[in-house]
Amino acid sequence: MKYAASLIISFICLSAFSQEREVDYVNPFIGTSNYGATHPGAMAPRGMASVSPFNVAGNLTLNPLEKDSQWLSNPYVHENSFITGFSHVNLSGVGCPDLGVILSMPTTGALEVDHLNYGSTYTNERAEAGYYGVKLEKYNVEVNATASERVGVTSYKFPAGQANILLNLGLGLTNEQGGMLKIVAKNEVEGMRTVGSFCYNNPESAYPVYFVARLSHSSENYGIWKDPQKYKGTESQWMGYNGKIRFKEGFRQEVIGDSIGAYFSFDLEKETTIEMKIGISYVSIENARENLEKETAGQGFNSIHKRTREKWQNKLSKIEVKGGSKDDKTVFYTALYHTQIHPSILNDVNGEFPKLNGRKTGKTDEVRYSVFSLWDTYRNYHQLMSLVYPDEQLAMVNSMLEMYKENNWLPKWELNSTETFTMVGDPAAVVLADTYLRGLRDFDIELAYEAMIKGATHTEENPLRPGLNEYMKNGFLSVESEVGGMVSTTLEYNIADYAISRLADKLDRKKDAERFKDRSISYRNLFDEGTGLLRPKRRNNDWFVPFDPEAGANFTENVGFIEGNAYQYVFMVPHDIPGMIELQGGAEDFVAQLDYIFDNQHYDMANEPDFGYPFLYNYVVGAEWKTQERVDELLNEFYKNSPDGLPGNDDTGTMSAWAVFSMMGIYPIIPAEPVYTFVSPQFEEVIIHLDEDYYDSEQLIIQANNAGQKHFIDSIFVNDQLWDGYFIKQSELIEANKIIFHLEN
Amino acid sequence: MKYAASLIISFICLSAFSQEREVDYVNPFIGTSNYGATHPGAMAPRGMASVSPFNVAGNLTLNPLEKDSQWLSNPYVHENSFITGFSHVNLSGVGCPDLGVILSMPTTGALEVDHLNYGSTYTNERAEAGYYGVKLEKYNVEVNATASERVGVTSYKFPAGQANILLNLGLGLTNEQGGMLKIVAKNEVEGMRTVGSFCYNNPESAYPVYFVARLSHSSENYGIWKDPQKYKGTESQWMGYNGKIRFKEGFRQEVIGDSIGAYFSFDLEKETTIEMKIGISYVSIENARENLEKETAGQGFNSIHKRTREKWQNKLSKIEVKGGSKDDKTVFYTALYHTQIHPSILNDVNGEFPKLNGRKTGKTDEVRYSVFSLWDTYRNYHQLMSLVYPDEQLAMVNSMLEMYKENNWLPKWELNSTETFTMVGDPAAVVLADTYLRGLRDFDIELAYEAMIKGATHTEENPLRPGLNEYMKNGFLSVESEVGGMVSTTLEYNIADYAISRLADKLDRKKDAERFKDRSISYRNLFDEGTGLLRPKRRNNDWFVPFDPEAGANFTENVGFIEGNAYQYVFMVPHDIPGMIELQGGAEDFVAQLDYIFDNQHYDMANEPDFGYPFLYNYVVGAEWKTQERVDELLNEFYKNSPDGLPGNDDTGTMSAWAVFSMMGIYPIIPAEPVYTFVSPQFEEVIIHLDEDYYDSEQLIIQANNAGQKHFIDSIFVNDQLWDGYFIKQSELIEANKIIFHLEN
Repeated sequence: MKYAASLIISFICLSAFSQEREVDYVNPFIGTSNYGATHPGAMAPRGMASVSPFNVAGNLTLNPLEKDSQWLSNPYVHENSFITGFSHVNLSGVGCPDLGVILSMPTTGALEVDHLNYGSTYTNERAEAGYYGVKLEKYNVEVNATASERVGVTSYKFPAGQANILLNLGLGLTNEQGGMLKIVAKNEVEGMRTVGSFCYNNPESAYPVYFVARLSHSSENYGIWKDPQKYKGTESQWMGYNGKIRFKEGFRQEVIGDSIGAYFSFDLEKETTIEMKIGISYVSIENARENLEKETAGQGFNSIHKRTREKWQNKLSKIEVKGGSKDDKTVFYTALYHTQIHPSILNDVNGEFPKLNGRKTGKTDEVRYSVFSLWDTYRNYHQLMSLVYPDEQLAMVNSMLEMYKENNWLPKWELNSTETFTMVGDPAAVVLADTYLRGLRDFDIELAYEAMIKGATHTEENPLRPGLNEYMKNGFLSVESEVGGMVSTTLEYNIADYAISRLADKLDRKKDAERFKDRSISYRNLFDEGTGLLRPKRRNNDWFVPFDPEAGANFTENVGFIEGNAYQYVFMVPHDIPGMIELQGGAEDFVAQLDYIFDNQHYDMANEPDFGYPFLYNYVVGAEWKTQERVDELLNEFYKNSPDGLPGNDDTGTMSAWAVFSMMGIYPIIPAEPVYTFVSPQFEEVIIHLDEDYYDSEQLIIQANNAGQKHFIDSIFVNDQLWDGYFIKQSELIEANKIIFHLEN
Repeated sequence: MKYAASLIISFICLSAFSQEREVDYVNPFIGTSNYGATHPGAMAPRGMASVSPFNVAGNLTLNPLEKDSQWLSNPYVHENSFITGFSHVNLSGVGCPDLGVILSMPTTGALEVDHLNYGSTYTNERAEAGYYGVKLEKYNVEVNATASERVGVTSYKFPAGQANILLNLGLGLTNEQGGMLKIVAKNEVEGMRTVGSFCYNNPESAYPVYFVARLSHSSENYGIWKDPQKYKGTESQWMGYNGKIRFKEGFRQEVIGDSIGAYFSFDLEKETTIEMKIGISYVSIENARENLEKETAGQGFNSIHKRTREKWQNKLSKIEVKGGSKDDKTVFYTALYHTQIHPSILNDVNGEFPKLNGRKTGKTDEVRYSVFSLWDTYRNYHQLMSLVYPDEQLAMVNSMLEMYKENNWLPKWELNSTETFTMVGDPAAVVLADTYLRGLRDFDIELAYEAMIKGATHTEENPLRPGLNEYMKNGFLSVESEVGGMVSTTLEYNIADYAISRLADKLDRKKDAERFKDRSISYRNLFDEGTGLLRPKRRNNDWFVPFDPEAGANFTENVGFIEGNAYQYVFMVPHDIPGMIELQGGAEDFVAQLDYIFDNQHYDMANEPDFGYPFLYNYVVGAEWKTQERVDELLNEFYKNSPDGLPGNDDTGTMSAWAVFSMMGIYPIIPAEPVYTFVSPQFEEVIIHLDEDYYDSEQLIIQANNAGQKHFIDSIFVNDQLWDGYFIKQSELIEANKIIFHLEN
């Protein structure tokens, strides 16, 4: 009897404590290898602050992927093994180094401020959504990290003896230099660090990130170090200190320099845990302090960690999945997690943020988002946000419109209120149109339309569409235009023009709709029947020679194309696939060309231009099974529960959004066309909890009544009605309570 | 009748407007050549801010005395002819480069930010107390400068066309680097600049000077420039901007760097005068702004200039002189002017200042003084202040005591709340004792005494008196002590010990008085009868060989001596001249040795150790005429109304104080002994207006009833009584209403 009761209690306890929730399936190490460029750091959803281990500096033996010896865009890579601190502002899934600054580091023993000397190997590394932990072997110090939206929180468990907490402003991932530090109390230091020139571009806009760092314990032995530039002139003969690090013990005013840091030392009688909170702001030190206090005052590590974890759970449980392996779920929820990192919150708790174009302080009542990698995200990311997080998508759209007001142009690749102007095309127009056409209309559509038309028609010093005159005149950018990737760029302009056309149609601006629809298919000028590919042309309409369709893969340079080759761009006309089928000579040749690309390894899962390819078989009746097969293969090959579990750079969540959609069985195949195409789901059931503020239905249920290894679609039922074809409109999807896939081998 | 009336009016006008006042005799160009190290800039008495032309950078042809090609300690030298701006914080009469930063510069035409290119030759240069003006030939721009205590004020008269006002934080006299700038309005920029490591010493204490610069006109075209360090690593291949200046147009957040500046450009339709005010603070930007507003809000250039000029007149008219040539008066009042530059005001208008030892913010109700070159000033400068400006002298003493409280040691060479620890000895003790013994007692004498005793007896890590153990044991510092200039330093310790002895005696601490009196004559151990000089010794009491009494002149290195040789130090025992006369073998040999030194050019008017020499003949009855002759010759040879009109470095007014006293006919011959010795005055009448808060007499009148070329003293009458001898006590001097010198050829 006693025994039985105990068993029952155990069972209850087990079910209470062991039932896994969505948040438990996040593995932040996914993407930290294979150039995924994610970091495993602790952060809140869309947090301004994050605490990432920093293991890309120094020691080339322990850190073979060293930041200064190559192009490296992440603060952490799984291959490396030498930590030199914990950076408190970080980008995730971007292709260029920036941020990765405000590095804290615990050490023990005599003060050492050269990261080459104070760095440590580590063990017992673990990460969850909102948490990262590690043990530094050199010091026997346990590090735990969590974060609220604007505050990075670390705790350091030190053994007895001298303990030091360093805050290094010299080291960083960004290529910008220069920081300022001021110790304002025995447990507090404030300052700023210059960051910017993302992608080695627009250095004029390099900008400050501000912070206030506060410790749980006061130090009696604190100060600043500075490693000045070595002076080489006549006077160096009198400078006995030339080239030596200076220690400014107890110094209480501002210190500035390219290589400076603050230290707080402690003489610990016994093992002691010291916590450190670093509030971040892009406006001012005062705001960083207010962020710190409003978000974390009176709260210790554990309560902040718990609250952040619940925020993640709340976000991730917007989609419930059933069935599938633990790895499948981990891949899925980590992908969803990766879509909740960027765009990030830019405004402080008081609503202030730096405006574009000069960085005057602006103020907002909603969220000001930043980090818009739109060339990536217009393809599927914002469609996912519109479906699952419509409030966020609308705030993003409003942020983009505010940027237009501030900068007179829509954003292209906006980063912390700088326009980096990287990549090509006019992607914001697509996002604005797509959002509106999917039914999210709580934004100033007239302003949006004005901005889109300006970007598409203003030929004077247009930073979004270089070469616009020629494009409007001839329908394509020629080699002589000197616009990088003239074929790629022509296609991007076509896609944007299509978006404008669709929106104009919706807004009953028929003339614009016609005009931009015409413009949207001008790519056809570049179709070469001989190769079945799109090719660069001269201005006089001659083909540019030589032409090597394989050139340009793997980011090598290639006339006509950006980040890709002719194979990877030929089908990047999502708005005109019927037209492309015709160009290819009909459905059969179309499928053959697609097959050729896949079968000869010309398909690149690691970059965006050919993201839509595997779904294109759905345009050919009878070939849909190939979409199902290709997607299944791609998911299996490239998306894994391991550090190399992303195909390549996550591109601020775009790579992950591909997996989220694909695994659910729907994909937004045409940007700015409110439609999805079907593919076999990876789970028995997916429940998307729709936001009732925006959608009439509470939820969308996608069931695969025969999921598992049986991945071919036999039939699809929408609300118990057999569905005809492999496409479904946004409105139909939203209205459908349940979509059932009948799968078979 | 009409004609006569007109004549009368003219006469009245002439006398009303042409009567020269004391302030009119200041020539700020005196000391700007011959390494006088003064600057001709505009400033208020003891001002924190000053506006000096900066002509020591760039172009070696136009500026042969270039700051980076040699040891140069002033922002301006008369020999040069290429101005690269106007620096807003400057030191005057110091031997090492520091400050000389926050440079404004007006230019015209296209923006150019490299000082090598934007610098200009100049003409029509003029300077007065509180005013400097010049015309920049390259731009045809008239520059006028004045200042209040904490605000530098410039006005720029631009021709029509594009005008630019630059604020360059890269350029500077200091060897420190690093500044911060933030444009906060179309006519306002705030920031800070790092300065320090004065005399290439104590770089750990390098510190910020803050400022707010405000223009009378708003600019529509403003920004920041930054010239970053050129990057040399792998990444430089991707940095197209590497090594190029960045222009951050309209940028409104902080920019930091070693070479940065702000510009405000104007498109002027007609000739326009734009004024710029730069408020300074050593505490914060907020305080700099408050200083600017409290001191100059609502006032234009002319009213600030007028008020500052009146402040100078008020200061300088504390001493009235009659007779003498215009050049004599100019030399005299410029010397007095030079004694009113340092020590300078360090506190802001709200009383805040940075404390020593960490730069926490302190607050005071009186004035916190800074820039104490005490090795220089203890000899005559503070005696002049005690006599003529006793309120200032007391505030200086109180500042020194506050420094003791902050830093646990009295200051040695304090500069803007850093202890530079340059030069040798324990000079603060002398100043404290001297002030008290001269009757100024409104300070905490117990604290002062404690501080003096600590400096004189504390043998552990004593920064004031290295080698103290050996000195206390053997009475001198040996070659083995490794203390620089062991003979010089022994003498300095003796002089400080004498001061302590005299103060102890006054405070009725007889035991201390005896003990320190004994210590004060220990230099006698170093007297070498063979040469009649003081010589370095080994610890075992052997003379150190070789010994070259001429080595060490002109700042060359010399074992045993600092900034001088054995000739220049042998009589630096002002407190024990009778003892020295005995050592020399009696009065005759003493005079012979003095004569030998003067006649063989071993006397150095350009440095402090032998400052008292010409007055020493007064110790030998019958030889006093030699004092009169020597002083007369020295004044004639070294003090002139011309840029090279100082013997050498003004040493923060010490060189000038020598002239002020000498020209008045009195000299404070023994530091810490309230006594003066007499010499022929250079004026028919000198009236010192005594401060009635401190002295019973309203004034002291010194008349030379036969002044002019007749410079030998026949007799001296004090209050109509024939005076016996050539010495007078401080109390007797103060009580004397009138001292009359009868002079003859």
